[in-house]
Amino acid sequence: MLTGTSTAAAGAGALLSILRDGQARTRAELVELTGLARSTVSLRLDALLSQRWVVPGDDVISSGGRPATAFTFNKSARIVLAADLGATHARLAVTDLAATTLAEREAEMPIGRGPEAVLTWLVDTFRELLDECGRRLADVCGVGVGLPGPVEHDTGKPVNPPIMPGWDGFPVPDWLGARLGVPVLVDNDVNMMALGEYWAGRSQVEHLVYVKIGTGIGCGIISGRRLHRGAQGAAGDIGHIRVPSSDENVACRCGNIGCLEAVAGGAALAARLRAAGHETADTRDVVRLVRAGNTEAIQMIRQAGREVGVVLASIVNFFNPAMILIGGDLAGAGEHLLAGLREVIYSRSLPLATQHLSVRVSELGDRAGVVGAAVMIIEHMLSPEAVDQALSA
Amino acid sequence: MLTGTSTAAAGAGALLSILRDGQARTRAELVELTGLARSTVSLRLDALLSQRWVVPGDDVISSGGRPATAFTFNKSARIVLAADLGATHARLAVTDLAATTLAEREAEMPIGRGPEAVLTWLVDTFRELLDECGRRLADVCGVGVGLPGPVEHDTGKPVNPPIMPGWDGFPVPDWLGARLGVPVLVDNDVNMMALGEYWAGRSQVEHLVYVKIGTGIGCGIISGRRLHRGAQGAAGDIGHIRVPSSDENVACRCGNIGCLEAVAGGAALAARLRAAGHETADTRDVVRLVRAGNTEAIQMIRQAGREVGVVLASIVNFFNPAMILIGGDLAGAGEHLLAGLREVIYSRSLPLATQHLSVRVSELGDRAGVVGAAVMIIEHMLSPEAVDQALSA
Repeated sequence: MLTGTSTAAAGAGALLSILRDGQARTRAELVELTGLARSTVSLRLDALLSQRWVVPGDDVISSGGRPATAFTFNKSARIVLAADLGATHARLAVTDLAATTLAEREAEMPIGRGPEAVLTWLVDTFRELLDECGRRLADVCGVGVGLPGPVEHDTGKPVNPPIMPGWDGFPVPDWLGARLGVPVLVDNDVNMMALGEYWAGRSQVEHLVYVKIGTGIGCGIISGRRLHRGAQGAAGDIGHIRVPSSDENVACRCGNIGCLEAVAGGAALAARLRAAGHETADTRDVVRLVRAGNTEAIQMIRQAGREVGVVLASIVNFFNPAMILIGGDLAGAGEHLLAGLREVIYSRSLPLATQHLSVRVSELGDRAGVVGAAVMIIEHMLSPEAVDQALSA
Repeated sequence: MLTGTSTAAAGAGALLSILRDGQARTRAELVELTGLARSTVSLRLDALLSQRWVVPGDDVISSGGRPATAFTFNKSARIVLAADLGATHARLAVTDLAATTLAEREAEMPIGRGPEAVLTWLVDTFRELLDECGRRLADVCGVGVGLPGPVEHDTGKPVNPPIMPGWDGFPVPDWLGARLGVPVLVDNDVNMMALGEYWAGRSQVEHLVYVKIGTGIGCGIISGRRLHRGAQGAAGDIGHIRVPSSDENVACRCGNIGCLEAVAGGAALAARLRAAGHETADTRDVVRLVRAGNTEAIQMIRQAGREVGVVLASIVNFFNPAMILIGGDLAGAGEHLLAGLREVIYSRSLPLATQHLSVRVSELGDRAGVVGAAVMIIEHMLSPEAVDQALSA
């Protein structure tokens, strides 16, 4: 026999990739799609069936007069634990392999409590969620975590995160891995949000920019269906691009002046409205004022939209995304913010780059980060190489 | 027998990818690297050997006491035809599968002569170059062409190219394919230059921005070792980003005002120096004046560097490239231009994004485009899928 187990395993991951589109296919259809010998397809299907990555469908399709079994990807074969840890809030979920939520929890959980306190709570809550949906830790294929600061992707360690006291260099994957016994991947929360949104719209979009406008401003980038993290994992830090503004000398927490975040971020807007006599402690107060129809707040948010628009117009010319999605707390100000944004993007970007450009509010809203964290694990664990490795182990 | 020809072919491309790093490897080493059965590796090696994609090396390595043959990628198995067609100049080359030049020709060839005249000359010159290096058209695996305007990547047709009269929508791949009988890929010249530079430095760099500063200004983008073309193939059009400048109302040929190209492009600088009494017809005259030590021209080129730097500082924050390479005619002004560029990039970009950033003049110079056009063909024809298909045909 020329093909051993390892050969069957080597091709099985690629076969699984084909079936992940959700369509049920017969052996004959898989032979046609892959150009492989029927015997090879059968061998690889057997490997996938034995681990329940693939299941025979209920459908029996008549092909050439003979009934045949159709096989489908088993999205319940494993489950995923996903967490989006924000500055003050956290969202945790258990999902299947299609990133569909099986159980979810939202809670106040200040990141400033430090890694051990926050991650202990994370582990406890994951256990509760597993109980809720009747699954066991043994079914979990990985844990994905989004953090509100820069993360060194290879090690999963936070790097000088400005709003995360105690987290700098903390080995999140090791700590969680030791307690949960499964692979852990950690990334910046805005990257996770971009990945979540890409996943939700993946049938149409190859290149996408997700802009989070909250207390600060940052973005996540999808280039060619993959997350673009940049050379130091610092890509997307658009909050510190200098913009022309009425007050060009406004100081930013980064040490520079005139940064987009210092001019148009939620903290800046709240401070400016406070100076004008309003009770705006944070971004949510600004949004509340806008929703209540306060003219001053509305004008301010529209101007903030224009200032973010100046930066996005450059990004459209440089990057030519198919879609720009706006998320974060300030996205709650909806059309007022978008109107300012669009005004500048459409007047300053090239027609070829804007003719099919879609600029809109995030579809997943507050759930983008946790969906993205699940997707990060799914893409990692279901890559052809990872599946082949799992099958040959 | 479980594995037919198609299975051997299916895996052979992946095996070739491993050998493309140039290192000679024995069967045992390939078995270890791939995790495949020895018999499978042998089968796939046979397929590659039969088509001379792989050749047995001279080396006989002693492994476990027994002598063994080491196999290497045969970079002479096929040849590539590559062309970089500029506004007034053209450069053509015949290369091997490692993008090493076997024969090369540079010539004055105004793109404005129209597609039939230029492409007829192209075909004739390629035939001459083939004769020069003693190879035949039958050895050619593909033709790569860079054009000085926007190109629809899927069809290879120019799209409203501003400086290419008669080329709009001309089916370049079909026209050349009919005459040369090999696959043809066409792309924008700046994309080709970025690809060429990436190839030259590929051991170190995953994310790169190549900026061409000539009559106009544009850039090519490498994200995650792949060319980023954007949703409409319009990525990199940074010449039309608005920049703050002494004369904000300067009109651009695109119909907008204050564009980078209208402020800092070679045509703009030549015109401004002309108005000051200098005989500067084009970008090359500007560079000549700078090299001659003219103070006015030096100040102007340094200021142009600052203005391009404003745009690049934003790009560094957004994209976090490992390297920015400056090419095009104005790059001939060397350190004066770079000084202005660096001044702004380092003052306005985040420290994390600039700490390892390299900003320098293109390494390949005028040859970047033709090298990139060859690389485009090589990457396409040596992809595992393409090799598998070639072997099963």
